[in-house]
Amino acid sequence: MGLRIETDSMGSVKVPEDRYWGAQTQRSLENFRIGEERMPEEVIIAFGVLKKGCALANMELGVLDRSAGDLIVKAADEVTEGRLFGHFPLGVWQTGSGTQTNMNANEVISNRAIEMAGGQLGSKYPVHPNDHVNMSQSSNDAFPTAMHIAAADSVCHRLIPALSDLKDELDRKVEEFRDIVKIGRTHLQDAVPLTLGQEFSGYAKQTELGVARAESCLKNLYRLPIGGTAVGTGLNTPRGYDVLAAKKIAEISRLPFEAADNKFEGLAAHDAIVEASGVMKTIACSLMKIANDIRWLASGPRCGIGELTIPANEPGSSIMPGKVNPTQCEAMTMVVTRVIGNDVTVGFAGSQGNFELNVYKPVMIYSLLQSVRLLSDAVQSFTNNLVKGIQANRERTDELMRNSLMLVTALGPHIGYDKAARVAHHAFENKTSLKEAALGLGYVTQDEFEKLVRPEEMVRPGIRKK
Amino acid sequence: MGLRIETDSMGSVKVPEDRYWGAQTQRSLENFRIGEERMPEEVIIAFGVLKKGCALANMELGVLDRSAGDLIVKAADEVTEGRLFGHFPLGVWQTGSGTQTNMNANEVISNRAIEMAGGQLGSKYPVHPNDHVNMSQSSNDAFPTAMHIAAADSVCHRLIPALSDLKDELDRKVEEFRDIVKIGRTHLQDAVPLTLGQEFSGYAKQTELGVARAESCLKNLYRLPIGGTAVGTGLNTPRGYDVLAAKKIAEISRLPFEAADNKFEGLAAHDAIVEASGVMKTIACSLMKIANDIRWLASGPRCGIGELTIPANEPGSSIMPGKVNPTQCEAMTMVVTRVIGNDVTVGFAGSQGNFELNVYKPVMIYSLLQSVRLLSDAVQSFTNNLVKGIQANRERTDELMRNSLMLVTALGPHIGYDKAARVAHHAFENKTSLKEAALGLGYVTQDEFEKLVRPEEMVRPGIRKK
Amino acid sequence: MGLRIETDSMGSVKVPEDRYWGAQTQRSLENFRIGEERMPEEVIIAFGVLKKGCALANMELGVLDRSAGDLIVKAADEVTEGRLFGHFPLGVWQTGSGTQTNMNANEVISNRAIEMAGGQLGSKYPVHPNDHVNMSQSSNDAFPTAMHIAAADSVCHRLIPALSDLKDELDRKVEEFRDIVKIGRTHLQDAVPLTLGQEFSGYAKQTELGVARAESCLKNLYRLPIGGTAVGTGLNTPRGYDVLAAKKIAEISRLPFEAADNKFEGLAAHDAIVEASGVMKTIACSLMKIANDIRWLASGPRCGIGELTIPANEPGSSIMPGKVNPTQCEAMTMVVTRVIGNDVTVGFAGSQGNFELNVYKPVMIYSLLQSVRLLSDAVQSFTNNLVKGIQANRERTDELMRNSLMLVTALGPHIGYDKAARVAHHAFENKTSLKEAALGLGYVTQDEFEKLVRPEEMVRPGIRKK
Amino acid sequence: MGLRIETDSMGSVKVPEDRYWGAQTQRSLENFRIGEERMPEEVIIAFGVLKKGCALANMELGVLDRSAGDLIVKAADEVTEGRLFGHFPLGVWQTGSGTQTNMNANEVISNRAIEMAGGQLGSKYPVHPNDHVNMSQSSNDAFPTAMHIAAADSVCHRLIPALSDLKDELDRKVEEFRDIVKIGRTHLQDAVPLTLGQEFSGYAKQTELGVARAESCLKNLYRLPIGGTAVGTGLNTPRGYDVLAAKKIAEISRLPFEAADNKFEGLAAHDAIVEASGVMKTIACSLMKIANDIRWLASGPRCGIGELTIPANEPGSSIMPGKVNPTQCEAMTMVVTRVIGNDVTVGFAGSQGNFELNVYKPVMIYSLLQSVRLLSDAVQSFTNNLVKGIQANRERTDELMRNSLMLVTALGPHIGYDKAARVAHHAFENKTSLKEAALGLGYVTQDEFEKLVRPEEMVRPGIRKK
Repeated sequence: MGLRIETDSMGSVKVPEDRYWGAQTQRSLENFRIGEERMPEEVIIAFGVLKKGCALANMELGVLDRSAGDLIVKAADEVTEGRLFGHFPLGVWQTGSGTQTNMNANEVISNRAIEMAGGQLGSKYPVHPNDHVNMSQSSNDAFPTAMHIAAADSVCHRLIPALSDLKDELDRKVEEFRDIVKIGRTHLQDAVPLTLGQEFSGYAKQTELGVARAESCLKNLYRLPIGGTAVGTGLNTPRGYDVLAAKKIAEISRLPFEAADNKFEGLAAHDAIVEASGVMKTIACSLMKIANDIRWLASGPRCGIGELTIPANEPGSSIMPGKVNPTQCEAMTMVVTRVIGNDVTVGFAGSQGNFELNVYKPVMIYSLLQSVRLLSDAVQSFTNNLVKGIQANRERTDELMRNSLMLVTALGPHIGYDKAARVAHHAFENKTSLKEAALGLGYVTQDEFEKLVRPEEMVRPGIRKK
Repeated sequence: MGLRIETDSMGSVKVPEDRYWGAQTQRSLENFRIGEERMPEEVIIAFGVLKKGCALANMELGVLDRSAGDLIVKAADEVTEGRLFGHFPLGVWQTGSGTQTNMNANEVISNRAIEMAGGQLGSKYPVHPNDHVNMSQSSNDAFPTAMHIAAADSVCHRLIPALSDLKDELDRKVEEFRDIVKIGRTHLQDAVPLTLGQEFSGYAKQTELGVARAESCLKNLYRLPIGGTAVGTGLNTPRGYDVLAAKKIAEISRLPFEAADNKFEGLAAHDAIVEASGVMKTIACSLMKIANDIRWLASGPRCGIGELTIPANEPGSSIMPGKVNPTQCEAMTMVVTRVIGNDVTVGFAGSQGNFELNVYKPVMIYSLLQSVRLLSDAVQSFTNNLVKGIQANRERTDELMRNSLMLVTALGPHIGYDKAARVAHHAFENKTSLKEAALGLGYVTQDEFEKLVRPEEMVRPGIRKK
Repeated sequence: MGLRIETDSMGSVKVPEDRYWGAQTQRSLENFRIGEERMPEEVIIAFGVLKKGCALANMELGVLDRSAGDLIVKAADEVTEGRLFGHFPLGVWQTGSGTQTNMNANEVISNRAIEMAGGQLGSKYPVHPNDHVNMSQSSNDAFPTAMHIAAADSVCHRLIPALSDLKDELDRKVEEFRDIVKIGRTHLQDAVPLTLGQEFSGYAKQTELGVARAESCLKNLYRLPIGGTAVGTGLNTPRGYDVLAAKKIAEISRLPFEAADNKFEGLAAHDAIVEASGVMKTIACSLMKIANDIRWLASGPRCGIGELTIPANEPGSSIMPGKVNPTQCEAMTMVVTRVIGNDVTVGFAGSQGNFELNVYKPVMIYSLLQSVRLLSDAVQSFTNNLVKGIQANRERTDELMRNSLMLVTALGPHIGYDKAARVAHHAFENKTSLKEAALGLGYVTQDEFEKLVRPEEMVRPGIRKK
Repeated sequence: MGLRIETDSMGSVKVPEDRYWGAQTQRSLENFRIGEERMPEEVIIAFGVLKKGCALANMELGVLDRSAGDLIVKAADEVTEGRLFGHFPLGVWQTGSGTQTNMNANEVISNRAIEMAGGQLGSKYPVHPNDHVNMSQSSNDAFPTAMHIAAADSVCHRLIPALSDLKDELDRKVEEFRDIVKIGRTHLQDAVPLTLGQEFSGYAKQTELGVARAESCLKNLYRLPIGGTAVGTGLNTPRGYDVLAAKKIAEISRLPFEAADNKFEGLAAHDAIVEASGVMKTIACSLMKIANDIRWLASGPRCGIGELTIPANEPGSSIMPGKVNPTQCEAMTMVVTRVIGNDVTVGFAGSQGNFELNVYKPVMIYSLLQSVRLLSDAVQSFTNNLVKGIQANRERTDELMRNSLMLVTALGPHIGYDKAARVAHHAFENKTSLKEAALGLGYVTQDEFEKLVRPEEMVRPGIRKK
């Protein structure tokens, strides 16, 4: 493959001739041979949006020539459309400001623009990567702006729709299971009854609150540090630039971004990212509860709880023929452990800013976007491949419920806690039914027992009378 | 010390005769000799509020006799006032539902009420711990309700005021340091200038957002699962009880609590606690940045950065005489590491609910309250013992700033990035001033240089002209 | 209460006249009103050992007068014996080097020694806190030495014995349950059989490895940074002091401590503490598995798995009479979440050293000791109050096992995986026994089936022949 | 692209005709569209080793025909050599037992073997994926065995060599900087001197201990659960198989693997992986200290500490020309935050086993291998691109050291701590040198001062005489 000479302020470097990137991208490739994790595509797309928005603002403020500006806009559009991913080879483990990825964007847009203008790649003419593409910007404000764009976009367009779908599907199950009375379980031990619909309503509520939490973290993500340039002061930007650039970005992305009023905070700390990660963690914890409950309720088929049947999507075992496993739950709970680990990474990294800059930007956005993506995909897969197909085993559910000793709780308000406890112990020790025990101990009449201990009445408030 | 016989559904137990607790508390003491961590006092106080609120609701709904109810209210008030802490000996490491602490509250209030009525301790007459004090409740809804009360109260009355004080003090420093131009630092390396006031404005902004974050987590804490009883259905509660009990609790605590619309979620998951802990983590990360910056800026006195002087509150070293250390920063950053660890505990525990109950309640509220308390106290100490006394070393600050090579950035828009880089390299390699380098390379005239490179102009947006 | 004047290099301070502490302790009390967490007693005891060891070494090397040295030794012994805890009031949240606790020890020993010599408290004569008690030491080497002493002692004398007891008890269960064939469960789904003894052997093995892991982390804890003084160079110590002081400490504590060969590492990093915490985390993960399994196997009594019965130590519910819950498991799993959170705190704090000192020492040792203490106590409680009383429900276990479809796996080697799968599906869909299905499909004869599908033969290797 | 029909126990599925995978792999691809993370190549390679080892053992024990066995060995070799990566498309987020990846290996080896034998892909003849390739195995023992092989191999062949190289390079710096006396810093404040070589010796020691820690975690990784099959009993394996299979694997991999004595622990828990991850965390904490120190010591060039110069590998800023940043340190510290997050993931996942199986296997091995890989690569990059090029700025170092007030510590043993403190305060307040202050206060003569305060003498033990 042919090579081309590219230059930067430190000298010249050879790059593959069919790639748009320049000297600084190439240096990063060579100096950071660490791991396999590439800068997420969401960030690359966000850079397309950002570079276009800044170019539009610069033109409107009269600091960027229309001819160069228009070329930048066109090339940036190609980045946004994902047509140039092959020109963004850099990894996550690079400079902590993300400068190398910002320069990667500058270099690719510059060279693509030069190409469109019929110029020579690497000539930096008529569109210079720093002087034109990066005009009124520094990596220090551009990269965190791209972080916010990428994070907000993913939360809005991937996570919230996925969670909403799950919520809808769970609501359908709440309705479908509305009248199935089942045994409740607390401490894993038999407790008083509820309906299967009520049980699922807890999951639906957790999911509904998850959507609200996801929405709440957008507020601070919508505040962009754009216009802060190198240290937050806005050095080398025209007056009014920050507000205008944010407005352009909002128009391009159709999300309500605006310029942060304090850029120092926006460069030196990424608390909005830490906050968003904390929300992902909270959503993950909800999902763990839901996924765990479903697999336990579907445990069996013959030696577990067996109140639910879940879809058999694939053979479950390479040695045990005919086995069906709750694999969607397992994928989900594995994702949860990852999101919780990511949250530790993001919080730790977010705490480590010094002076005017936090230099853990790439790992923060990589980890947050992984959380958003995994949650979104896992929720969608869980909804489609599992929740939709859940069926209640009414017979098994009813049998277990009828057996339970905890129906005795309904006697509490009438014979008192202590006597009711004696009934339960008596039945357990003598392996009898509750009724036999209660009658045997002489605490209630058969008539009273039947009036008071009615599982279908025990699933709501209201004091029953003897 | 004398002993008294107390009984529960499993038989009789001896308890110290000068303590109000009963059989179940005593069993817990004996069965859980684990660690030194006691159930936090905030939770005990919350139980006072809760037991009173429930008794009032039960009386109003006609299920609890006035005579027993009034006694419960009086005894519960003593709990709320902190007069009975010595009767709450239980640890954090007990049953995961907090049942033993709920029973501790029931037993203490029962016996104290019996005492006020002239009855015999342990007789359960005229106020029974389960049938009266715990009426219309289960530990499963009472304990998480107490968790929410304790958490919301601590966030409102300890954390938010402390953060607000810090914010105010930082704002004063922003004003005081408004005109001190200093070198910025990114990647720990010299960068372009900003004012010390601007630098502190970043801290003030982080703190301001911290207050807003703390307020945002209250919303879900204000939703109480009271009235769910054992599994969330409200079994054994009179109709309308949940809303009324929450209203009473709101009146007593003067915080806008209300009954959660879905109790299943409120017993089986504690996402509101996980969410609040995530907010504590985010605030902690902000504080780490602030505390670290201050100690670095105050590093020295002669071999560090030395731009700030901090109060000398105590001798710094047992071997190095005359040493002054940034000890308030150190206490703060240690607290941060703890809050971040607590957040992992809370998230992990919060994910582990099964079916109708999460049985990690005590560790969750213990860890969250520790975070709130430590942050509140550390912020207050930091504000009073450190921030108020911070002084700027104007001379040192100015000297460092004048020396910096990064003032060259102001030349960028005029001679281009590449030439500006050459000026900086030239000055660095030849150990000259920037001006000497710029003039030596012939890129600008002396007049242009002086017009363009003016640190005091570099701290805000605006394109300067040659 | 009367007050006494104490002085330090910054001036004079009033302290309570019945306390031995001096000016620096008092300043810390006033400047750090943060939280409720006190410096752990294990650290105070370790300081008694350390101060005695150092005094002995200093005397032997001829730099400390016998008269002062003997007094220090006596006073230090009182510290070690726990008789002076009331004189160590400082919190965890203080200076990050632990200097204030080191000075607390110096001041208390000095004043107690002065008192024994008939001198005047606060006079620093004839035993000066810095010049004599702290001789050849700095907080920077003394505090981490005390950390290592406290940690090693706790691991050796609390954790390892507790784990060993659990191991022994589990081994007894392995023996007791040796011949109970039960259904295995993978993915929570019915799988092929094993014995209950085999299942418990997994727990025993985890515990055995836990003991080995605990022992392995002692190696680096036994290396003491004593003798490094302020920055690791050993400034102001006599030659040979480090080795001799470590030897004295080893003699006093009867643990094989020795002087670290590199003191710079020992002051500026606490990787040995991070390592030990990682071991605690690993042990905690093992315990979570064990505690979870036991509570699931004991779930029921009628609507769960119910293969085990666990002791009923206390009433389980405040509303559901007669309920028995796996409370020891719950205390254990709550402890686990705490240990995992602590590990994050310790790792984070351990990573944050700068130059010659890590200033997160108090939070690191506090968190590690909490983990060790909680694990030790919880394991002991778990062993005594739960494991010893576990009983197998042979009837229930056998019934579940006989029902399982996964016994079909034994047919695999003979009729192949695909046909065996068909047998299982057939039985499941038609709700028949495996045998009926296998015979119905004509894959084996009755005789072959009975020869091949023998659960009691399926619990060990060996290819059975048709 | 053409499609081929493949079948499994649930029916038939279409797969791309140029791929060797079969029905179960294809189902997984379709059912788990979650994230972008693929099963790590290290695991695929380990499966090649494992499948070959098992086939060899099966042949030797007479349960596998030579003809099928030889074909499996050849195909497995191609997997090990990395020639078939394109046939392993599955993600991390699949079934928690890794069954789908085990089946992927079975299917690919089966079809490749069939192809070599001139058979028809998908025919399962003459080499059946379950009956032959998976013979004497279950995913439940095969996957964790592959986890151990992959982890041990990565630690041995990537991490330990990388850390050893760093250790060697640091040792070279210790030698090179042996005689450069510099100011020590504790609490970020000026302290007593040490040599730059001593400072680096702390880093070297941390690295040396890191190598030892990495070696220590191999012990439990070398114990393979192979032969446990579905639940740990060894069902459907010939006697002696476990030991023989482990021996074969050891021979192929040239690592001292052996069969675990308890397979139940090996399937249901992955404490060895949790342990290894804890070691990675500990090593990461060491590296954070080292990387942070180096970037702070190199901070400047004019407004920081500036004692070190580091290589300028790339332009540092897109807006500030001529800036050089410590980018290798930043990549390293970002990696550290990731490893610490991974450790939380691994511990959490490792704690969640139930009964006979832990179903978080893929996320555990993915996270651990990411940690090993990132640490290995980052350490290598750090060594080559940073450490090798570090230079000491002797002039600057000497100037700072001479200025420090903490040299006063050398006076402590002679004039006492309190007077020495007064000298330091006096010098600081009056901005004089120490000598001027000491003489001015009349505590020592000029001759004594010069004899006692000799920085080059203060870097080692030994009491100096007046």
